[in-house]
Amino acid sequence: MNGSPYVLRPIGRVESPLTDPETAPKQGDEGAPDAWIVFEESMSEALRGLRAGSDVLVLTWLDRARRDVLTVHPRDDPARPETGVFCTRSADRPNPVGLHRVTIKSIDGTRAQVQNLEALDGTPVIDVKPVLDPGVER
Amino acid sequence: MNGSPYVLRPIGRVESPLTDPETAPKQGDEGAPDAWIVFEESMSEALRGLRAGSDVLVLTWLDRARRDVLTVHPRDDPARPETGVFCTRSADRPNPVGLHRVTIKSIDGTRAQVQNLEALDGTPVIDVKPVLDPGVER
Repeated sequence: MNGSPYVLRPIGRVESPLTDPETAPKQGDEGAPDAWIVFEESMSEALRGLRAGSDVLVLTWLDRARRDVLTVHPRDDPARPETGVFCTRSADRPNPVGLHRVTIKSIDGTRAQVQNLEALDGTPVIDVKPVLDPGVER
Repeated sequence: MNGSPYVLRPIGRVESPLTDPETAPKQGDEGAPDAWIVFEESMSEALRGLRAGSDVLVLTWLDRARRDVLTVHPRDDPARPETGVFCTRSADRPNPVGLHRVTIKSIDGTRAQVQNLEALDGTPVIDVKPVLDPGVER
């Protein structure tokens, strides 16, 4: 196994009214308020083509998560049997990468207003990708 | 902007007949051969609950990609206008995280055989997540 480190560089950050992990929704379609993604100025060219109205996948680094958690009760429900984190969307996992499908509401320079992003305020953003729906042209 | 580094730790690696980036399919449903994900032994508990027959999202670190590329011609087609990498699935991007929807064919200890994984042999795996289809119970 190659032990060399793989270092992420944040491309931007989340601005959101969500600040408390305890009360934040677990998924973006469960009542997340509108948020902004504030991209680094140096990413301006990489944003070319992003449009209001389109859905994209946003990848974040959940910097307040625990990385030593391997099993959880899904949705923090002790009635559910403990299961491996790779079968859940738990933020606590060896590499706490968040994956969020959001709708872009507007774009203002290197800021994008988005719907359905449940990440906490200040969360680093590491990537944005188009949604590939089967049957839809890429 | 917080400048502190975010370091990924590979949880496993891809074993695949694909070794040449030039001839590898661009998406997993475009003819990728069966591959294995060989997880670290220390990840055994985190795999608990993964089942043959289920679809999962696999996140990889595309360690042969370029990180200084901000715009590309989609699908390497010069006839298509140059666009920002965040509007494409280009491997070349500031943080080359690959996102692959695969079907688990079989599980053998900490090895999982998967369909539709277009990552090259040796590619580090950084996360596995369940697919969340709207309307399907999580």
